[in-house]
Amino acid sequence: MKADIGLIGLAVMGENLVLNMESKGFTVAVYNRTTAKVDDFISGRGKGKKILGAHSLSELVSMLEKPRKVMMMVKAGTAVDQTIEQLVPLLEAGDIIIDGGNSNYQDTIRRTHDLEAKGLLFVGSGVSGGEEGALHGPSLMPGGSEQAWPHIKPIFQAISAKVEDGSPCCDWVGSDGAGHFVKMVHNGIEYGDMQLIAETFHIMRYRLGMSYDEMASVFEDWNNGDLGSYLVEITRDILRYKDEDGSPLVEKILDTAGQKGTGKWAGIASLEFGVPLTLIAEAVYARLLSAAKDQRLAAADILGEPDCPAFSGDRKPFVEKLGKALYAAKIISYTQGFLLLKEAASNFGWNLNYGAIALMWRGGCIIRSTFLGKIKEAFDANPNLENLMFAPFFAEKLRASSDALRTVAAECASSGIATPALFSALAYYDGMRTRRLPANLLQAQRDYFGAHTYERIDRPRGEFFHTNWTGHGGTTAASTYNV
Amino acid sequence: MKADIGLIGLAVMGENLVLNMESKGFTVAVYNRTTAKVDDFISGRGKGKKILGAHSLSELVSMLEKPRKVMMMVKAGTAVDQTIEQLVPLLEAGDIIIDGGNSNYQDTIRRTHDLEAKGLLFVGSGVSGGEEGALHGPSLMPGGSEQAWPHIKPIFQAISAKVEDGSPCCDWVGSDGAGHFVKMVHNGIEYGDMQLIAETFHIMRYRLGMSYDEMASVFEDWNNGDLGSYLVEITRDILRYKDEDGSPLVEKILDTAGQKGTGKWAGIASLEFGVPLTLIAEAVYARLLSAAKDQRLAAADILGEPDCPAFSGDRKPFVEKLGKALYAAKIISYTQGFLLLKEAASNFGWNLNYGAIALMWRGGCIIRSTFLGKIKEAFDANPNLENLMFAPFFAEKLRASSDALRTVAAECASSGIATPALFSALAYYDGMRTRRLPANLLQAQRDYFGAHTYERIDRPRGEFFHTNWTGHGGTTAASTYNV
Repeated sequence: MKADIGLIGLAVMGENLVLNMESKGFTVAVYNRTTAKVDDFISGRGKGKKILGAHSLSELVSMLEKPRKVMMMVKAGTAVDQTIEQLVPLLEAGDIIIDGGNSNYQDTIRRTHDLEAKGLLFVGSGVSGGEEGALHGPSLMPGGSEQAWPHIKPIFQAISAKVEDGSPCCDWVGSDGAGHFVKMVHNGIEYGDMQLIAETFHIMRYRLGMSYDEMASVFEDWNNGDLGSYLVEITRDILRYKDEDGSPLVEKILDTAGQKGTGKWAGIASLEFGVPLTLIAEAVYARLLSAAKDQRLAAADILGEPDCPAFSGDRKPFVEKLGKALYAAKIISYTQGFLLLKEAASNFGWNLNYGAIALMWRGGCIIRSTFLGKIKEAFDANPNLENLMFAPFFAEKLRASSDALRTVAAECASSGIATPALFSALAYYDGMRTRRLPANLLQAQRDYFGAHTYERIDRPRGEFFHTNWTGHGGTTAASTYNV
Repeated sequence: MKADIGLIGLAVMGENLVLNMESKGFTVAVYNRTTAKVDDFISGRGKGKKILGAHSLSELVSMLEKPRKVMMMVKAGTAVDQTIEQLVPLLEAGDIIIDGGNSNYQDTIRRTHDLEAKGLLFVGSGVSGGEEGALHGPSLMPGGSEQAWPHIKPIFQAISAKVEDGSPCCDWVGSDGAGHFVKMVHNGIEYGDMQLIAETFHIMRYRLGMSYDEMASVFEDWNNGDLGSYLVEITRDILRYKDEDGSPLVEKILDTAGQKGTGKWAGIASLEFGVPLTLIAEAVYARLLSAAKDQRLAAADILGEPDCPAFSGDRKPFVEKLGKALYAAKIISYTQGFLLLKEAASNFGWNLNYGAIALMWRGGCIIRSTFLGKIKEAFDANPNLENLMFAPFFAEKLRASSDALRTVAAECASSGIATPALFSALAYYDGMRTRRLPANLLQAQRDYFGAHTYERIDRPRGEFFHTNWTGHGGTTAASTYNV
């Protein structure tokens, strides 16, 4: 019996994907560099299942149906290149290599072109959902060599999460690096969502002085409404989870957030493509700041901790405002994320289907939520939607919730609660709606010191003016020196 | 007569640097790819001066004293590589190529190593001060092949700006890309300073309803005090400058800010090195948002413009708060910038002298200010200062001004004035001083969905825990799948 697909890399995500595939009727061949792991798996979690263990890559390849499909679940970076290098001589034209790790989309673009030049097909697929998702139904975002799609579609859509109507949270994203780019934006949005939840938690804990059980009840309520989502749901569970001594475990966890790079990549891509991704960038920076714990402790000693006043008033309406603020900030963050996707698509010639992307994120992945169902509806209603905030549903939601965001931000500014993500959401929302921003002053300054020229509101766009602001100096506009 | 130095690229910055060098007694040979520019310059601004015109690179090189010093003022990017490629065969061991453009520090690292391998010396130098600075005394930030420094030091320190006591705003920065890295951070800080000024202008204009002359008077007052700086000074001039019809010219300038990349690079570097550079990033994003003018107009139509209430109260105390808020935000922005320098120095093995860098920025360049004199004093007093906010002078200033920043931010949040840079400053300041940030929740979430493990406050750092939050699923900690 030949296997339908081979999988390399038996860490928890790899193992769970294999078990998921097998449970859908596929035979899977597996290989791990430390081959003892193969034997452990075959005689352990994989026992009695249609899973074939290989002790070398050539053995793995020999076990596969043609065209061969080999999926790598190895650490992003050089390990992927090394594995590809070892696989290439073992494969033949039309065979498919799939990278299911969190690879940088630029690497995926390069690998797609390199392997296509060798007659092979390459797919870089985002895989989200954590270990649970991998086992029971992840969100899958494949891109790369489109000819590979018909061959992997039956497996990918079978193992992926499904939404209520049975639609799979997996569709073809686009050419070369599109799948990993979409996964990167997904992860960036995940950073943003997590930071927003953390900020609302911080406000409830320190500004409102709520107990963990009270906070858990708020997240439970939110999870049953518009904010219903995996991250809100697990936050409820986490806030309720008690340590051995009966106190909330989360209170004992060190407040230094780690990260693995995809959030940073999203920030870098936003700067490279010129798209304001303020909320995600602030979320990434907030993790970095949290990690500088020793410096923060020194700052608290030297500068004093923020002096958060006790809350006097009815908590309930404020908590309601918090929920609305969170919703408004989510709309703004996703707006920024989709604008980054649009800019990248235009840059790389990807024909992205934004409704399909919202559907891929609707289930299975870490950011899954009812909210993404609304985004899918918005793009289905208008596939050329310029800006998510302009969709009637979200425009109405913003009108109904932006005052709450404003009140919460002002309250946090006054009381010393650091809410960088909420602040950035409000600044973006107000900035985006402002017909005349103070950038006219920036242009005047740039023309003053660098002769960079400016346009005028009373003249056609594309006509540039330079003023000799000081009455002396040259009239040459800058061409070399650029700020 | 041989020339002391050759300069390639006669745009406004190049021309002005040549005239500056010549005025200090140096003979300068010049070349420009479009050679008509050489003749125009020699018979125009350069007439009767010790300036030699060359019509080819080989002619330029033949005019130079040994070791030859050739400074390029050409557009950053491929033009620099092409010019270097053409120069190399014309030069001999020990000759020096200087790149005075806004090159990316990574290119400068590469070029330094490439040219050193060929026996040549390479210097990548930041040059700031705009066209006026180039002519009368720029800030110069040279780095690269240290053996080149004794040869170029007399010229560079002669033409650079000087502070009150005569110290030149030019010193050796460090090896390979150090000079251009410092220039990149300078430019990022410049973006931040400009955005902060623009935000205070916006508040005065729209929230306080002040006239341009009233605003100009505020900037004049600020320029005579702690906030004294080139950018505040030119803002005063700009606000007073009248168009032909007698109205303020700046009011007619289109509010879409341009940029040329170094601000973005600073943001990218901060993400790569893991340093929260929130204020500069927000300043870059604010320019990008301003540039999306059509989308902003659509947003104003669909979502409505922010509804800024009329100010009813005494303006004067609020304007005083604005000045303090601006000062506090500057401390925070420079703190972030110097932390990025520290991280890069540690990464690249640069032995940066932070006091010397503050002195280089103290005069000549766009961000020159009395404030930088205070930064120099802080680093002189403690060269190992961990964080600028911890210096006694700045800690005291923050204690005296952070409430004003808080009041202004809350006021802007409430009244719909978009102030992303002020917001980010406040969030960073409060976050940095917070002993327990909500990152414990982030770590719990990451452990919940990705088995990423966490540390505990009641256990030693470096000891990692994983909780089986759901009571089911594996106990394996993630090794491949990373968020």
